[in-house]
Amino acid sequence: MAVGQFSPPEMFAIDGVRLGVASAGIKKPGRIDTLLVEVSEGASVAGVFTQNAFCAAPVTVAKKHLARGDVRYLVINSGNANACTGKRGLEDALATCARVGELTQVDAMQVLPFSTGVIGEYLPLDKLADALPLAREDLELNGWTKAAKAIMTTDTRPKQASVQIEHDGEIISISGIAKGSGMIRPNMATMLAYVATDAVIAQTVLDDLVRVAANKSFNRITVDGDTSTNDACILIATGRVGTPMIAESSGELYGKVAEAIVRVMQDLAQGVVRDAEGATKFVTVDVAGGSNPQECLKVAYAIAHSPLVKTALFASDANWGRIVAAIGYAGIVKLDTSVIKVWLDDVLVVDGGERAAGYTEQAGSAVVANDEFALRVDLGRGTSRETIWTSDLSHEYITINAEYRT
Amino acid sequence: MAVGQFSPPEMFAIDGVRLGVASAGIKKPGRIDTLLVEVSEGASVAGVFTQNAFCAAPVTVAKKHLARGDVRYLVINSGNANACTGKRGLEDALATCARVGELTQVDAMQVLPFSTGVIGEYLPLDKLADALPLAREDLELNGWTKAAKAIMTTDTRPKQASVQIEHDGEIISISGIAKGSGMIRPNMATMLAYVATDAVIAQTVLDDLVRVAANKSFNRITVDGDTSTNDACILIATGRVGTPMIAESSGELYGKVAEAIVRVMQDLAQGVVRDAEGATKFVTVDVAGGSNPQECLKVAYAIAHSPLVKTALFASDANWGRIVAAIGYAGIVKLDTSVIKVWLDDVLVVDGGERAAGYTEQAGSAVVANDEFALRVDLGRGTSRETIWTSDLSHEYITINAEYRT
Repeated sequence: MAVGQFSPPEMFAIDGVRLGVASAGIKKPGRIDTLLVEVSEGASVAGVFTQNAFCAAPVTVAKKHLARGDVRYLVINSGNANACTGKRGLEDALATCARVGELTQVDAMQVLPFSTGVIGEYLPLDKLADALPLAREDLELNGWTKAAKAIMTTDTRPKQASVQIEHDGEIISISGIAKGSGMIRPNMATMLAYVATDAVIAQTVLDDLVRVAANKSFNRITVDGDTSTNDACILIATGRVGTPMIAESSGELYGKVAEAIVRVMQDLAQGVVRDAEGATKFVTVDVAGGSNPQECLKVAYAIAHSPLVKTALFASDANWGRIVAAIGYAGIVKLDTSVIKVWLDDVLVVDGGERAAGYTEQAGSAVVANDEFALRVDLGRGTSRETIWTSDLSHEYITINAEYRT
Repeated sequence: MAVGQFSPPEMFAIDGVRLGVASAGIKKPGRIDTLLVEVSEGASVAGVFTQNAFCAAPVTVAKKHLARGDVRYLVINSGNANACTGKRGLEDALATCARVGELTQVDAMQVLPFSTGVIGEYLPLDKLADALPLAREDLELNGWTKAAKAIMTTDTRPKQASVQIEHDGEIISISGIAKGSGMIRPNMATMLAYVATDAVIAQTVLDDLVRVAANKSFNRITVDGDTSTNDACILIATGRVGTPMIAESSGELYGKVAEAIVRVMQDLAQGVVRDAEGATKFVTVDVAGGSNPQECLKVAYAIAHSPLVKTALFASDANWGRIVAAIGYAGIVKLDTSVIKVWLDDVLVVDGGERAAGYTEQAGSAVVANDEFALRVDLGRGTSRETIWTSDLSHEYITINAEYRT
């Protein structure tokens, strides 16, 4: 199940990035589960990773290799997370990099490894090693769509987004793919994302930009509040287009490129929520009137994580009592409930902390009957505002997670 | 659905406490939904209440009346929470107290009101007023069992517990009832509890004791992480037994009585978890080796609130990857994952942060196939230890909460 219709967008090739896939048969024989991404020499690469203390072996290795710079290949497998696998897990992640290095004549440290799938099982290294030459042969500029499919696990749809912007007659392209449908929460989850542009961006700016953009996209979605061991979001700038080098996080060109990258990442992030395990609703939670952004986010996540709110959404029940209860326990100091307002889309439901005078069940129900709607809150105590995206909690979520080993 | 067999225990009468019930037909015609509790003159009464900023009107009134002291009646209705009802809600709660005061010839301020049920609807005051004389006529010392039933909402079983202890030839009795099956989390939830003893306990000691005991019982359970607007736990000491006055929170008699009160409250709290909405498992989460109690509780609640862990428990799946992922994102500063151990009952599952050498899927599955088991963690960084109790997340939880208006 997933929310709304899905039509994969056209993916613009990024000069300097080639993608190839293959089947290593990690979880199922014949399944395309291996992705190799080749990055041109001189490209800048930046990333953000899971905050989970149990970070997986490939995350540890990718962080270390990324810090060294001069990245030439990304290797991603689905079906096995290589997480909670101790010393052997680290050796396996390093061996994967070494194998890619041998194949492509680069140093193993120029390779970033990523894994997603079952936790606690060792990587089938031989199978993966056998698939890598095939993935290498398959490398092509127009590989984005097949790449999006190769990294899926419980995903029912690939996530892909692509935009082009114009600057002084030059066309800058940005393309990205992501995977993820459960274990999704702020600071990322079982979520992998790879976004590339041909713009020319200095390393320091890119390091900053990947954080800023992830914060406005992947760190603003939640499905079940679980944070995984393997998350990563990688941003690549190949510098192959003729626009000037972006050397500072300011200026017109920076603004245009940053906005386009955020747009691609938000598209991908919202795609993850729309494909959330068992999701039947895509809900924007928009909290305004906080004293600071943290207050708005606390309230937004209290609502978005509440199983009672989420099951009511699943039932298309405008159960505003559960929403105000969640606001009330969000932990906001000295919250004055008598000024709080809640809307479903444009329908004012709660005014001054109680049912709004003109509100009818019918008006609320009409909104929550839709596949997509906004749940808006005004805390009435400041000017901050934050938006996150979430899904409902359905029978199918239970079925998927009771039957599948992530 | 509920975990295990239920056989209601014998309830010892508490000299100085009489209970009477009636039907006001608040949610359903004919349903017993009104409880009146009479407390003898000179009894001490103490309480703890919800931390939700949207606390319900009766909570506001009960706190105010309790602070004044000299409580003579408790009036509880189920079916309507009188929460998020603004000024009219407060007036309705006060009017309920006034009605009880008229009937029983006490001041309205000597009455504590409580409500549980649907949020955001006004209390049907006339119906409740009509039922109060019937509840008053029904007052009796042996009313505990019917009282436990009268306060139920989505509960499938009444929660009642009763113990007697002996001191210098005198028998001290403690009896209690509770309700709650969803919106359950630390700092209480849609949870009402009334516990009474005939011991002689000074007001200051009782004020302290209700906090200590609630902390070891009702604040150690979680079903869905939602905290309600109406929680209250009330402890009554009628002082009718011949043992000495307990004037300090120390000494042998204090220790015995406090332990018995904690035992009654833990019984009630565990009864709430066993009857959790849709529960099929009763799981003890026991976290040792923390630097302080807060660390242990953070990890315990991260596990107990994880929808992925909870659905795995529902599926009787020993999915330890989800457990370690939850430990990893619990927010413990500088957590060394390489020393962490996890057990299912006595089966060592994770050792040194990865799958224990001797662990087999079969051994883990055998434990989680049971209705009741313990999930134990050693963080290996200190001597603190905390225990909480929780349930799984099942299809029936979704069905109940998608179809029922709490």
